[in-house]
Amino acid sequence: MGDGLVLGVDLGGTKLAVGVGDGAGGLRARRTLPTRPERGPEAIVADVVRLARSLARGRLLAAGVGCPGPLDLEAGRVLALPNLPGWEGFPLRDRLTEALGVPVVLANDATAGALGEYRFGAGRGCTDLIYLAVGTGIGGGIVAGGRLVSGGRGNAGEFGHLTLVPDGRPCACGRAGCLEAYASGPAIARLARERLGRRARGVTAAWVARRAAGGDPDALAVWGEAMDALARGIASLIHCLDPQLVVVGGGVAAAGPLMFDRLASLVSRYTMATFRDTAEVVPAALGAESALLGAMALAAGRGHP
Amino acid sequence: MGDGLVLGVDLGGTKLAVGVGDGAGGLRARRTLPTRPERGPEAIVADVVRLARSLARGRLLAAGVGCPGPLDLEAGRVLALPNLPGWEGFPLRDRLTEALGVPVVLANDATAGALGEYRFGAGRGCTDLIYLAVGTGIGGGIVAGGRLVSGGRGNAGEFGHLTLVPDGRPCACGRAGCLEAYASGPAIARLARERLGRRARGVTAAWVARRAAGGDPDALAVWGEAMDALARGIASLIHCLDPQLVVVGGGVAAAGPLMFDRLASLVSRYTMATFRDTAEVVPAALGAESALLGAMALAAGRGHP
Repeated sequence: MGDGLVLGVDLGGTKLAVGVGDGAGGLRARRTLPTRPERGPEAIVADVVRLARSLARGRLLAAGVGCPGPLDLEAGRVLALPNLPGWEGFPLRDRLTEALGVPVVLANDATAGALGEYRFGAGRGCTDLIYLAVGTGIGGGIVAGGRLVSGGRGNAGEFGHLTLVPDGRPCACGRAGCLEAYASGPAIARLARERLGRRARGVTAAWVARRAAGGDPDALAVWGEAMDALARGIASLIHCLDPQLVVVGGGVAAAGPLMFDRLASLVSRYTMATFRDTAEVVPAALGAESALLGAMALAAGRGHP
Repeated sequence: MGDGLVLGVDLGGTKLAVGVGDGAGGLRARRTLPTRPERGPEAIVADVVRLARSLARGRLLAAGVGCPGPLDLEAGRVLALPNLPGWEGFPLRDRLTEALGVPVVLANDATAGALGEYRFGAGRGCTDLIYLAVGTGIGGGIVAGGRLVSGGRGNAGEFGHLTLVPDGRPCACGRAGCLEAYASGPAIARLARERLGRRARGVTAAWVARRAAGGDPDALAVWGEAMDALARGIASLIHCLDPQLVVVGGGVAAAGPLMFDRLASLVSRYTMATFRDTAEVVPAALGAESALLGAMALAAGRGHP
């Protein structure tokens, strides 16, 4: 890369993270802003360009952008972002290419996260892993045989929309019973509000986790239900993909042992005998930077061996 | 391959198919026998060797064996076959290598089926497909980015053990609510027996399909329920893997349009908007030979591009 830098962008519904580095796991500098998606996509393009100039100072070679899916990767367009209204069909890759003046690679944010963890994080040394980002939604990414699995249109890994309960709870995607409707941050908060009634106004998943960690029995019950759902989904994914490792990141994973201690025993319970304990469930080693470092690796052409 | 031949073996719980060909989709000759697994694995090894000698006449270069999973591919061993008692831990690869005197590649039968359809069947020209073999059980295989996905231990694609209904119907794997417990041949027959009572003694999935095709309302209801379950499972797999194509083979797929007409509309109903109609659901083009031709391709070193 010589003296050049690659830009990584992790575009979330809440937070926009922009960083520069060498594309090989090094993060030189990083800035975050609130996304405020209601400003529309051009305002976010302007933010990215401004941060890129200030961080890269003319040394930018390429950029990788992780964006919540699903995407039309061939056209470089956003298809539909439930958490980013007004973005449908926006030609994000071409607009950023034009505005930054360097090649831009677009990827699903959780696919980028899987790549980050595989190359530089918890998945180093593995050939087969799945990554789940449990936050506002539940995204996912797959590495199989040492290669990132993108799917036919680049949208592989929508683990949040694995059906957990046929005709179950309504999901933001318009369907019902999706894993995301049981184990995402908003799903945990909603369950807490239903169970705890008025005591629970304005609660978040983090609030539930704190109360559960403190031993509150109602919070523990809600938390346990969400972890049970997540474990059932992970067990199904283990049967489908036979990974060596399951890496869980995203905001909800900040609960730490409260999540991982439960998941270990529940995933073991829900997997069939010959898959039992073949895949450890571990926290993302790169924390909030999995997708950012993965996006940089894509920009540097390190998506595949 | 010069004048040499590769051997393909498709070892099922009911039927043992052995063929020879060029490993590039050509099938020179083929024989099938009842497996009669109760005879134990050495009897089947002897059958394979006898058929191989008679079919290949000294021109055998290599062999590929598709075997119901899960397998320990590193050790070349069978882990556990619910439909083949007495096989647990049997060193199938090494015993066949020794007995045939040529290199033997062992693979999950549905993984071999996915490869067969990808290389020579319905999946030609695709880069991303999933294959489901719906029969005594439900097996599966994945091709992603033009490569066979094996998983960390070679057991990727156990789609039959995707949980369809939490704590639902008991499954042969010892768990509950698996797709296989709702849509495999025996599951369809069991459902028919439950619904139709004594009228339905000794029924099979094929019987249900015939009656349904003839317009029998009870049989149609049972068949519809199984297709509904299968479609829900396929929709979840589409969200996870974003395939261009879903290929369905196995004994139950012999029902033809009765299966595929229903699946088309149900899969479309159960997929989220941005995935809707992105993956066509089609019958296996190689019929009963998907796994046999895939196993030969593996033997010929054509598992990966």
